[in-house]
Amino acid sequence: MLIKMSKGATPEQIAAVENKLHDLGYKTGKMVGEEITLIGAYGDITRLPQGEFQEMGGVDTLIPISRAYKRAAQKGSPDSLIHNTVNIGKVTVGGDKLTVVAGPCSVESEPQIMEAAKFVKASGATALRGGVVKYRSSPYSGWEGIGSNSDEALRNGLKLIVKAGKEFDLPTVVEVLDPADVTVYEDLGIDCIQVGEPNSKNQALLNRLRDTSLPIIHKRGNSLDVEAYLLWVERVMANGKENVILCERGIMSANKYTRNTLDLGAIAALHYQLSCLPVGVDASHGTGIRDLVHSMTLAGIMAGASLVLIEAHPNPLIAKSDGFQGLFPEQLHRLVKACEQVWDLRRRLDCLYIPTVKLERDYDARSGEDKMRFFGSA
Amino acid sequence: MLIKMSKGATPEQIAAVENKLHDLGYKTGKMVGEEITLIGAYGDITRLPQGEFQEMGGVDTLIPISRAYKRAAQKGSPDSLIHNTVNIGKVTVGGDKLTVVAGPCSVESEPQIMEAAKFVKASGATALRGGVVKYRSSPYSGWEGIGSNSDEALRNGLKLIVKAGKEFDLPTVVEVLDPADVTVYEDLGIDCIQVGEPNSKNQALLNRLRDTSLPIIHKRGNSLDVEAYLLWVERVMANGKENVILCERGIMSANKYTRNTLDLGAIAALHYQLSCLPVGVDASHGTGIRDLVHSMTLAGIMAGASLVLIEAHPNPLIAKSDGFQGLFPEQLHRLVKACEQVWDLRRRLDCLYIPTVKLERDYDARSGEDKMRFFGSA
Amino acid sequence: MLIKMSKGATPEQIAAVENKLHDLGYKTGKMVGEEITLIGAYGDITRLPQGEFQEMGGVDTLIPISRAYKRAAQKGSPDSLIHNTVNIGKVTVGGDKLTVVAGPCSVESEPQIMEAAKFVKASGATALRGGVVKYRSSPYSGWEGIGSNSDEALRNGLKLIVKAGKEFDLPTVVEVLDPADVTVYEDLGIDCIQVGEPNSKNQALLNRLRDTSLPIIHKRGNSLDVEAYLLWVERVMANGKENVILCERGIMSANKYTRNTLDLGAIAALHYQLSCLPVGVDASHGTGIRDLVHSMTLAGIMAGASLVLIEAHPNPLIAKSDGFQGLFPEQLHRLVKACEQVWDLRRRLDCLYIPTVKLERDYDARSGEDKMRFFGSA
Amino acid sequence: MLIKMSKGATPEQIAAVENKLHDLGYKTGKMVGEEITLIGAYGDITRLPQGEFQEMGGVDTLIPISRAYKRAAQKGSPDSLIHNTVNIGKVTVGGDKLTVVAGPCSVESEPQIMEAAKFVKASGATALRGGVVKYRSSPYSGWEGIGSNSDEALRNGLKLIVKAGKEFDLPTVVEVLDPADVTVYEDLGIDCIQVGEPNSKNQALLNRLRDTSLPIIHKRGNSLDVEAYLLWVERVMANGKENVILCERGIMSANKYTRNTLDLGAIAALHYQLSCLPVGVDASHGTGIRDLVHSMTLAGIMAGASLVLIEAHPNPLIAKSDGFQGLFPEQLHRLVKACEQVWDLRRRLDCLYIPTVKLERDYDARSGEDKMRFFGSA
Repeated sequence: MLIKMSKGATPEQIAAVENKLHDLGYKTGKMVGEEITLIGAYGDITRLPQGEFQEMGGVDTLIPISRAYKRAAQKGSPDSLIHNTVNIGKVTVGGDKLTVVAGPCSVESEPQIMEAAKFVKASGATALRGGVVKYRSSPYSGWEGIGSNSDEALRNGLKLIVKAGKEFDLPTVVEVLDPADVTVYEDLGIDCIQVGEPNSKNQALLNRLRDTSLPIIHKRGNSLDVEAYLLWVERVMANGKENVILCERGIMSANKYTRNTLDLGAIAALHYQLSCLPVGVDASHGTGIRDLVHSMTLAGIMAGASLVLIEAHPNPLIAKSDGFQGLFPEQLHRLVKACEQVWDLRRRLDCLYIPTVKLERDYDARSGEDKMRFFGSA
Repeated sequence: MLIKMSKGATPEQIAAVENKLHDLGYKTGKMVGEEITLIGAYGDITRLPQGEFQEMGGVDTLIPISRAYKRAAQKGSPDSLIHNTVNIGKVTVGGDKLTVVAGPCSVESEPQIMEAAKFVKASGATALRGGVVKYRSSPYSGWEGIGSNSDEALRNGLKLIVKAGKEFDLPTVVEVLDPADVTVYEDLGIDCIQVGEPNSKNQALLNRLRDTSLPIIHKRGNSLDVEAYLLWVERVMANGKENVILCERGIMSANKYTRNTLDLGAIAALHYQLSCLPVGVDASHGTGIRDLVHSMTLAGIMAGASLVLIEAHPNPLIAKSDGFQGLFPEQLHRLVKACEQVWDLRRRLDCLYIPTVKLERDYDARSGEDKMRFFGSA
Repeated sequence: MLIKMSKGATPEQIAAVENKLHDLGYKTGKMVGEEITLIGAYGDITRLPQGEFQEMGGVDTLIPISRAYKRAAQKGSPDSLIHNTVNIGKVTVGGDKLTVVAGPCSVESEPQIMEAAKFVKASGATALRGGVVKYRSSPYSGWEGIGSNSDEALRNGLKLIVKAGKEFDLPTVVEVLDPADVTVYEDLGIDCIQVGEPNSKNQALLNRLRDTSLPIIHKRGNSLDVEAYLLWVERVMANGKENVILCERGIMSANKYTRNTLDLGAIAALHYQLSCLPVGVDASHGTGIRDLVHSMTLAGIMAGASLVLIEAHPNPLIAKSDGFQGLFPEQLHRLVKACEQVWDLRRRLDCLYIPTVKLERDYDARSGEDKMRFFGSA
Repeated sequence: MLIKMSKGATPEQIAAVENKLHDLGYKTGKMVGEEITLIGAYGDITRLPQGEFQEMGGVDTLIPISRAYKRAAQKGSPDSLIHNTVNIGKVTVGGDKLTVVAGPCSVESEPQIMEAAKFVKASGATALRGGVVKYRSSPYSGWEGIGSNSDEALRNGLKLIVKAGKEFDLPTVVEVLDPADVTVYEDLGIDCIQVGEPNSKNQALLNRLRDTSLPIIHKRGNSLDVEAYLLWVERVMANGKENVILCERGIMSANKYTRNTLDLGAIAALHYQLSCLPVGVDASHGTGIRDLVHSMTLAGIMAGASLVLIEAHPNPLIAKSDGFQGLFPEQLHRLVKACEQVWDLRRRLDCLYIPTVKLERDYDARSGEDKMRFFGSA
């Protein structure tokens, strides 16, 4: 962390900042410019009481130099990345195989979720999704999920998807909305808890999830910078929890044609530069347009995703929620096959990539003109 | 609601849509264009199962013509607006007087909140704010509010601000983070519950707030269009609850200098065009810069706000959270006085404004050339 | 176009709107709702004087139903898309082969651009790019391109890239900044003119480009909705010009980690739904981070691009502008090979995709229960 | 400027950066952290070739510490701001009086602009605006301004507004679109050139404007951060030109209800913190809704604007462009009076404000407990 002092900061103010840092156990450095003095704090910045320093006399701003998220961060170097794996039931996310989580927006009935599980399994997907309590932007939409009206309804809804998952040997992924419900998800055997976009910054819920052993898919909020997102993810991991999966599902932008703007550059940045966690892509919410889900799911894998979330319904024409973005079974079938081909190709191409850091070492070893010539002959 | 059929829609598909609307009790109209047919549905659109229509054969898109929020909507006409009032304790928001809610970001200790209440009262502000459990973007900031660690801590924290409010005759406004805590707020005598920006779309929390008699200040999420925001507010009001207050606190934009972009155009739109609810402005979070809070609070009143939220601290230099945007007591003192002057001026200027609808009536009564001449002599 | 009348619109006002439409040669339709009347205008909407109607008494808003861009629009149906090809010199963009345009941000000297052309050709790329007058966000950067100081400098700079292109049999793509320069580009044999992001809405420049026979790569402005972008592109095509290529290069969003947010969903929407024009992707500007250009270029092809723009330099470590995003020659070499593999795979997968419109026909032919069963057996 | 070296940077790479800075005449400082080394460059940063450093071996990123714009920057201190004035004809912008520039979107005919000038003068406004060549988002709108078709048309259009301005003693403000037209504006006696939003980053145009003696109103691009905007403004001033006026007219955001999001926080930041230049507000484009122009113009003054731009038309119901946001003459009349009252109040309130820097001096002089008590008695 750098502490930038104001133009008119006095020597006493500068000394006070340095002393406070020393008291807290940080080593310091200092750079005295023509107008501005900078003080550097070395050590574990996650413990630094930023607000207190922000408010000391003569302090202008704090400039973060190293990242405030540590557990979610990438620990390797550009030419030797380190990536975690996370288990959802028997499925390993982030390893050699692509994980495909598919299913309807909502669990609607036992026949519907059984049908859904059947074609999801047949398509080759690896896990089953389905909402039991559902987000709706309008309070008057009339349907907020099969489990929305009582604790008993919640239990019954969760039991349906667990049953379908067991029947077709698919681990289950279900979104949670209320911290009070987490225990029920655990008790009834849900395999993975999803945090939806509207709850991406729900502190009470994230704090609660620190204590579950279930893996979490934590979706990115639609107004979050990618590093700000990692700081919210870090909240779930703060006490040592490691089985967390990132997921890009679209952010707000100038574009109004797609429901959201799927930020695949964030996926590439997370996977290749910023984080050790597996990254997922949800093109169903990311586009909101059924006929774009195919292309954008594949593009998401190419950008770096190792998990895909796909909404699909036995018959999207009669789905109770979000049917316009859910795939038909035939479309899911084709897409899962396509996903595997794109996954294989990406992994081969990944191996061929030469990170800049490797090239810079060679270039630095050469003199000016030589550097130019060197590449002429490449 | 208009239902736009695709170019190739068949007469059978068109009839199917009309029949379904009739079955649901809607009257319909139809416009047959050269390429596209439109079907209009007349009646209470809030009950229309949009997803089902979206998915019918031959349907392209649904185009909303009237608004999907009803309770939060403005019920008057442009030249005769209707505005609700909401009571926070003994204070009436949205009436003749401006409401100023001021206080520290966090309740830190009994002496701190008593000092705060004292200078808030002295400044002329009308209500006391203070957080007991606090949002922090970093999980490592070390301080999440005096009430964050246990139910007992929550109760003790709430009691402190209630005591301070009583001592200085100020109603209290406190943010809630977890649906499970609402009952505690009610029991301990908090006068108004605030929903913070990160929870603006927290469905579990909003659903819970339908059942409290306490007034709600519902802050706008930083990625919400102003009408999408009203739909989330409508959720709190869906069962008949009326004492809800809107609050603009900054949205995400291209601007990075201020912490958020305070969207005063939204305040004007809400107050003068879209909603019957009182509108507040929070320039502390909206700018994140102490020396801009003064100007932007005043501009917010001029744009249409009837409530202002201001962070202020007995000594912001030693505040435990967000001190860099909290005002010094002297600054609050000056700002409250300034607010009252701006409020008075705006109310006078409001009376002088001529809404377009009035002018159009005159203009329509004249012939072409006459219309131009008419204004030459104005 | 739909014209939505206000709640209080009088029968006379409604008749006036209808009469004006008839006078202008439009057929009309009308839908009279409980509160609101809608008037539809059928015919060529591009000629409709929207402002005049907007201002008629009793008119609330105009709601566009069909698209305001015609030449840039997709003319086929979802299961039978129609795509144009555009020639850049001898290279055909938008046909069977992927087009790779590569080269340095700026032409710096004759040896530099000759070296660049040599390795660009060797990599397998199909065209050469290089700026002669350059955008710089800071006026003090000291270097605004080899051709920036005089008309003679411009001519000499353009001659260098033309010479390099000829030597290595690569057509050339150069950005233009001033309408007055277009003639020079034509005279000196540049093969394709690029409109950069800062000029995406430069009306004087776009109007001027209507009259050149050279093909245009028109980059999307970073604040433009995808359909608003098409309307600016339509401006270049308004008089009949057809050889225009779209290009996504990143828009503004909540994300601050990448220089811009590459909106690949826009590429998918343009290619598969909205436009007949070839679509390019520029991941160099779209990410601004060299080590992400590889992944995001490939993801862009997977999303629907048929042209890629890649910045590459004989030695990016000593580039005079934007070196931090330019590829090393070895990286370009690998990327071009990878691009071809991704292109081949995408074209195969495109053939397998089942557009929704096809499935809907089958579904419509079945009864309710049957529809659900149908998919169970899929 | 700080240069942040990568984790693995070698001592040789660090020395190379320092040596290059010394060669360029900069003094340097260094801070060696546990993982990262920072090198500071002291001196005039506007001359630093950032790209070259960005690309040196071992360099991670460059972190700007002082601002890259100098001429447009605020030169005073928070408790003693320095503000320029700029003359438009005989009118002084940025001094004791508010400047109100009003008039139609477009000059349509001699009678129309004469009528317009008459009621603009009568309203008390101080300058006349009117477009002669006009931006239109659709190329098919059919009207691009009275001066759009030829050089002669341009001259005739400009002559009309100059004549109207002279007749009613109002200086004239006209937008320019093409660098080639600047000379014509100068020759025909236009008093102020406006750069519109779509041209905010039009480098060729901005470079050309360095050489005119006419004052410039440079509108902010709708995707520009406020400091990035100042860097484009700095381009016009780079050779010493000083008579430039800033103008906020709305940026892109999550809000879709208003045509743009008027960023009044940017006005406050520019006026009170970042720049010495006068700041204008254009609520006509900033809202795009006639009935919000009143409130938002007044709020803009309260936020810090000293110039307002208002579209108004003798009869907006028959305006050829943008009529839906243009005021009726009666509305302009009322608004100008209201503006003056808000201006007077703001100037009085400005004098009462206590900048934080003053308070901090007092606080620093006290001990801990004392600081808290101090405010209790305030």
